[in-house]
Amino acid sequence: MVRAVSELKQSDRPAAGEAVSGVAHFGPEDSLPLDCGVTLQNWSAAFAAYGTLNAEKSNVVLVTHALTGDQYVASPNPTTGRPAWWPRIVGPGKAIDTDKFYVVCINVLGGCMGSTGPASDMDASAPGKSWGLKFPLITIADMVRAQEILLRRHFGIESLFMAIGGSMGGMQVLQWAAAYPEKVFACAPIATTSRHSAQNIALYEVGRQAIMADPDWRGGDYALHGCRPAKGLSVARMAAHITYLSEAALQRKFGRELKAKEGSTFKFDADFQVESYLRHQGQTFVDRFDANSYIYVSRAMDYFDLAAHYEQVLAKAFMHTQTRFCVFAFSSDWHYPPQESRTLVRALNAAGANASYVEIETDKGHDAFLLDEPEFEATLRGFVKASANARGLKDS
Amino acid sequence: MVRAVSELKQSDRPAAGEAVSGVAHFGPEDSLPLDCGVTLQNWSAAFAAYGTLNAEKSNVVLVTHALTGDQYVASPNPTTGRPAWWPRIVGPGKAIDTDKFYVVCINVLGGCMGSTGPASDMDASAPGKSWGLKFPLITIADMVRAQEILLRRHFGIESLFMAIGGSMGGMQVLQWAAAYPEKVFACAPIATTSRHSAQNIALYEVGRQAIMADPDWRGGDYALHGCRPAKGLSVARMAAHITYLSEAALQRKFGRELKAKEGSTFKFDADFQVESYLRHQGQTFVDRFDANSYIYVSRAMDYFDLAAHYEQVLAKAFMHTQTRFCVFAFSSDWHYPPQESRTLVRALNAAGANASYVEIETDKGHDAFLLDEPEFEATLRGFVKASANARGLKDS
Repeated sequence: MVRAVSELKQSDRPAAGEAVSGVAHFGPEDSLPLDCGVTLQNWSAAFAAYGTLNAEKSNVVLVTHALTGDQYVASPNPTTGRPAWWPRIVGPGKAIDTDKFYVVCINVLGGCMGSTGPASDMDASAPGKSWGLKFPLITIADMVRAQEILLRRHFGIESLFMAIGGSMGGMQVLQWAAAYPEKVFACAPIATTSRHSAQNIALYEVGRQAIMADPDWRGGDYALHGCRPAKGLSVARMAAHITYLSEAALQRKFGRELKAKEGSTFKFDADFQVESYLRHQGQTFVDRFDANSYIYVSRAMDYFDLAAHYEQVLAKAFMHTQTRFCVFAFSSDWHYPPQESRTLVRALNAAGANASYVEIETDKGHDAFLLDEPEFEATLRGFVKASANARGLKDS
Repeated sequence: MVRAVSELKQSDRPAAGEAVSGVAHFGPEDSLPLDCGVTLQNWSAAFAAYGTLNAEKSNVVLVTHALTGDQYVASPNPTTGRPAWWPRIVGPGKAIDTDKFYVVCINVLGGCMGSTGPASDMDASAPGKSWGLKFPLITIADMVRAQEILLRRHFGIESLFMAIGGSMGGMQVLQWAAAYPEKVFACAPIATTSRHSAQNIALYEVGRQAIMADPDWRGGDYALHGCRPAKGLSVARMAAHITYLSEAALQRKFGRELKAKEGSTFKFDADFQVESYLRHQGQTFVDRFDANSYIYVSRAMDYFDLAAHYEQVLAKAFMHTQTRFCVFAFSSDWHYPPQESRTLVRALNAAGANASYVEIETDKGHDAFLLDEPEFEATLRGFVKASANARGLKDS
């Protein structure tokens, strides 16, 4: 038995029908080679799992999370107390039905919810000194490589019925399909892109600069100094959050509504409701997220450019794939505009892939995949059902 | 002779055909009532003027500047050494021909290039203590009110042949047309809006929060402490600068080009060219702009909502106007999308105004009005010429 599994507590083992979460630790026998050239000899991956793994291990759905997400896709995060982040989609009777599928969600490498990242101890045998900026730079491919090892070595899962995720989760889905085509029966990349545009690199660079400008960041060693770059991280979150909403959604939600009924205060307090909302988004974020993780994971998104590894021809990433794709985009998403999904679908078609494209009309912007979008849910449900039939999975 | 004029040096007086700049000081007899309720008893306005005022004083073009602009529309800024900011449009033989028109550009109230703002001394007789956050909040209408007084009391100019400006300059143009319809023969609001959207309020709030998060901001009193919130202001500029370019322009200019030919550095240095470009934009900005001015002037933009002062009906701001309007928008401008200009033009039509609308196809984004856009220049030239003919101005 590998070290990873032996170190798990019994309570970490997924029991039938229950939500379980845990952290798997891996040693040199499962070392993780990274794109930057460094190999992590010891690393951990935190996960949550829902439902029951069938005897054939053929009903696994891997849900991949976005930049600021975590593994608690369908149950509350016990650390932050925040509710499940995708309860509309994952759960009993939902499109990703936990009565039928075995759903696994894994905190990304570089994250801050239990998986190895810049806040982890550099040396597990000498705790107290975290990596900080000495942590090697990671990529989306590194995250996926870690997930594959975790699934195979910890769960004994060799292949996925489906990989599904939105935003940065969608990048991981595409990376799974490209790197392990034989292991992915179906996949749903949602509100995502096959490569970060210059605008998105620029937007995340503003966030990183905001964090690094905070003197409490201390060159990344804030933990050693007992402080946190809360103000910088808050500004980074505010900047990013604007890109997650459409202009129409902001206008509908807040317009130019003032906080005070009496009118403008002519002060620099949050006079407009949209200002209080943003400040609240920033302030609550710093309580649940690590600033260095934000820097590392956003950087991984910037580096993502699938075609670059296939002679700049995106179709080559998917040549002869047997995976079924359903690509979802939202009309008002300006973070990853539908145009980028259409480019992806063209490449899939050029590769001869079985690919559908669904563009949902909505004014909710990028975050629409997390919100109440009946057409998205219904279409996704249809894709999951059709794929399950094709895979020969019995209806529950 | 009013104090304003008497205090001017002779060299400040516009001489025929020359570019002159100066600062006019106003005392209690020209006190400036602000929308917030405060009245400035002593205030100053810095200007630059080009060309020759004709005997009838009928050839005045007021150019209004944008958030981070200044009065040096057609000559180098002697303080920063930066070149004229609109040389393509204003100068001898240009669309705004300084051989024909008398062009005045005025640093906005709240600015930092000589006009009264948060960096000015609270009490001119006891210099050394600047307003900081004690400076009253200002609005676009306050800026325009100050410009009207300067033109009338300093230059003896009672009316404008034309008011023209882009972005926040366009807001001032609209405010001029609404507040002083009988004083504006023609006007050209460019790449602008009649009110700041929730998204724009949100974007500028991020910038303000970035500045205020910088410990060197010191609650706005950085001047007293001999420091400057350079990092915060730099982040604010970076965030705003992204909105001035289109995604297509960023992609065309930088794409995903790396700085190093050898490929990714896998460090947090500026790996992508778009990152170096943005960092450079941020760093050079802090040398030429005052952080508190940025806070005040961006806030004035947020407060701008012309219809709010006319029973929420934009058309009422322009009812029975005799002013000729030519509204310019750029197809890829996502800061003030063409839709907002179309809304403005509908209101102008509803008010029975003489209004043209020109939407320039370009991928250069919001900043297109400052860049090489032959169709924009040609159309503007046509509008200026036709208006000059209508005004009976002789061709030079």
